[in-house]
Amino acid sequence: MKESLQKYLVEFIGTLFLVLTAGCSIFGNGQTIPAIAIGLILMVMVYAGGQISGGHYNPAVSLAAAIRGALGWRHIAFYFIAQILGGLIAVCAVKYAVVVPPIEAMPNFNIPALILGEFLFTFALCYVVLLTATSKAVEGNSFYGLAIGSTVTAGIFAVSSFCLAAFNPAVATAFFALGVINLKSWLIVIAAELVAGALAALVYKFLSNDRT
Amino acid sequence: MKESLQKYLVEFIGTLFLVLTAGCSIFGNGQTIPAIAIGLILMVMVYAGGQISGGHYNPAVSLAAAIRGALGWRHIAFYFIAQILGGLIAVCAVKYAVVVPPIEAMPNFNIPALILGEFLFTFALCYVVLLTATSKAVEGNSFYGLAIGSTVTAGIFAVSSFCLAAFNPAVATAFFALGVINLKSWLIVIAAELVAGALAALVYKFLSNDRT
Amino acid sequence: MKESLQKYLVEFIGTLFLVLTAGCSIFGNGQTIPAIAIGLILMVMVYAGGQISGGHYNPAVSLAAAIRGALGWRHIAFYFIAQILGGLIAVCAVKYAVVVPPIEAMPNFNIPALILGEFLFTFALCYVVLLTATSKAVEGNSFYGLAIGSTVTAGIFAVSSFCLAAFNPAVATAFFALGVINLKSWLIVIAAELVAGALAALVYKFLSNDRT
Amino acid sequence: MKESLQKYLVEFIGTLFLVLTAGCSIFGNGQTIPAIAIGLILMVMVYAGGQISGGHYNPAVSLAAAIRGALGWRHIAFYFIAQILGGLIAVCAVKYAVVVPPIEAMPNFNIPALILGEFLFTFALCYVVLLTATSKAVEGNSFYGLAIGSTVTAGIFAVSSFCLAAFNPAVATAFFALGVINLKSWLIVIAAELVAGALAALVYKFLSNDRT
Repeated sequence: MKESLQKYLVEFIGTLFLVLTAGCSIFGNGQTIPAIAIGLILMVMVYAGGQISGGHYNPAVSLAAAIRGALGWRHIAFYFIAQILGGLIAVCAVKYAVVVPPIEAMPNFNIPALILGEFLFTFALCYVVLLTATSKAVEGNSFYGLAIGSTVTAGIFAVSSFCLAAFNPAVATAFFALGVINLKSWLIVIAAELVAGALAALVYKFLSNDRT
Repeated sequence: MKESLQKYLVEFIGTLFLVLTAGCSIFGNGQTIPAIAIGLILMVMVYAGGQISGGHYNPAVSLAAAIRGALGWRHIAFYFIAQILGGLIAVCAVKYAVVVPPIEAMPNFNIPALILGEFLFTFALCYVVLLTATSKAVEGNSFYGLAIGSTVTAGIFAVSSFCLAAFNPAVATAFFALGVINLKSWLIVIAAELVAGALAALVYKFLSNDRT
Repeated sequence: MKESLQKYLVEFIGTLFLVLTAGCSIFGNGQTIPAIAIGLILMVMVYAGGQISGGHYNPAVSLAAAIRGALGWRHIAFYFIAQILGGLIAVCAVKYAVVVPPIEAMPNFNIPALILGEFLFTFALCYVVLLTATSKAVEGNSFYGLAIGSTVTAGIFAVSSFCLAAFNPAVATAFFALGVINLKSWLIVIAAELVAGALAALVYKFLSNDRT
Repeated sequence: MKESLQKYLVEFIGTLFLVLTAGCSIFGNGQTIPAIAIGLILMVMVYAGGQISGGHYNPAVSLAAAIRGALGWRHIAFYFIAQILGGLIAVCAVKYAVVVPPIEAMPNFNIPALILGEFLFTFALCYVVLLTATSKAVEGNSFYGLAIGSTVTAGIFAVSSFCLAAFNPAVATAFFALGVINLKSWLIVIAAELVAGALAALVYKFLSNDRT
């Protein structure tokens, strides 16, 4: 019981800081490189919390981990809740601290390109998580957080010109709450991301020779 | 005795280079990215000195480490002195080498936002330090310095538009000595940071199952 | 048989994301630093796939690995095919998602400088791969991916003003398919890169005292 | 004998790429961040060659390593020669590939600030090398290259507005050969760097409890 609460608290804290960093670095007016800020805070939270909760901070990653067998299915709903809640609390702080432009000022994504971008890099992210943080072949390595965070940095640099570049349903939900995307884009993005996570888990199962 | 002096010297050197890098990269006129410079020098000094003093360079971190049981309480005043002294010596070098604008030219922070930003990322920093550098579950890892330094980089990118982004009472004190913030902001910042450090230690105690 | 397919699939996926990231970050119109994006995605894919295929994503690296004895010669043609195929699939996504300028708008490289740049950094890349990822003296390290990806970032920052900065025949082939370089430059670049890979393997053999 | 040649060749190759990257990224006309490029190539070469030569690529570091007992004194002259030779060969490539402005276009450094900047960060660099790459307390770690390279990145970001930011007599010599600094500045820089390396070794001896 206490162990479960520990896991959920870690997922809550990590997702809170992920969304806080994303929102403030994108909409603050300082000299900033959001792709680097976001990748680094994800890396940091993975290194800090991985030992306790696995360090997902992302429902697509939790889904992939559950399919792969690295997260008990009984935890998954609580992980989702903790992640989304963390993101929504961060939204309040972001709204207080910086000025988020109205939705009319946001880019209007071409839907197939939006799906393509979110799908591809959420797949990459889950693929990297499973191979670096759950594979027995590289157990005890010190690089998993760096690999996971950097996937997001590379992905934002690559595809943010034509998609939301969230790669994470909890972040996408927070962006929806912030008024950055409309309802339709939000639903499309979440669906694409969850499908990508599931596919990554299947690819992992083909690639891995681990028994568990 | 010699071991204590070794610790204090390491804290002095590390904080000196932290403040030197912060001051020169913020106020020098070269092509520079202060958030990256500051995060990297903290990382470097943590990797170099962690084996000797724990590599805090930050009174809020030392407080969190003492509450968590990773630093003997008898050392804490000397850590504070070494850190603040290192910062003040660096202030002299910064003042000699680059031109620090007068306090009138500095941003005037909104007080609640100032507290929010300093509190949140000092909490994140101490949380990351305790989980990556003092937790038995990840003992012997090679990522603690990267995680600790990158928290500061991500934090500066995220919140420097609305707060000092020091996350460190020794750095805040050096900025006060440099004339970057006024007395009131300085006291507020230090208080917010120390409270954040203490809270992070309590959260760590809830999350960790270590006996010591 | 399944193990071979696992290797080829990993090489296919990794090269696909490498070219996708290169194409989208260079030709997308967002705020982006291609040198960092490309180095990070290579690092990430090396960490994810290294345990399965060696994580080459680069025919010059596969050639160097084969000469050094780290890749069975019977695999090499399949590695080349998987890498080039992954790159070409990525080209389709890049062409769909971003606007690639016509070849007339591309820089016209001075041929000897083109050869010099591609040769030197492909040599550095293969030298670094062999020494960090295949040498017994540093077996089990966690830095090989960081070292490999960062060689490409440093190389792009250094020589992209006077050469293609692909350092990789599969990437060069994808750039040719994208219409970024002409046939003559493509052939020259590939030849320079393969010679550099072979030379790096010979230098490694002189430097290493490993029996295998 | 072969082992000595291996060491010198590694020092030659590493310093060559260090100066090549510095020269091309500073004077090339592409989109580039020299501080990051230079820190990364140093990191990469440290990870690749550290296992063979110690990965110095810097006479000040070799001097510090010799005083600390990590490099045999009989090697030091050959290390210096290999490092300076590697730098000079790189100068030829830099001169061929990019346009180096005439010395009149270079900043005229204030001499005490020049000494201060070179001294402080060469001290930091040697201090970090000895503590992360030669200390028994952290033997087998995977972070030494990251720490060493990042010291240079942070240092360039911090002090390049008022000094050469070479932190390395071989690089300073290459810059002199490139016509970036005059004879007087060159001699001053080299002296400041060697003194800083020696001091770092003495500080290390006070801090370390290693027998060897």
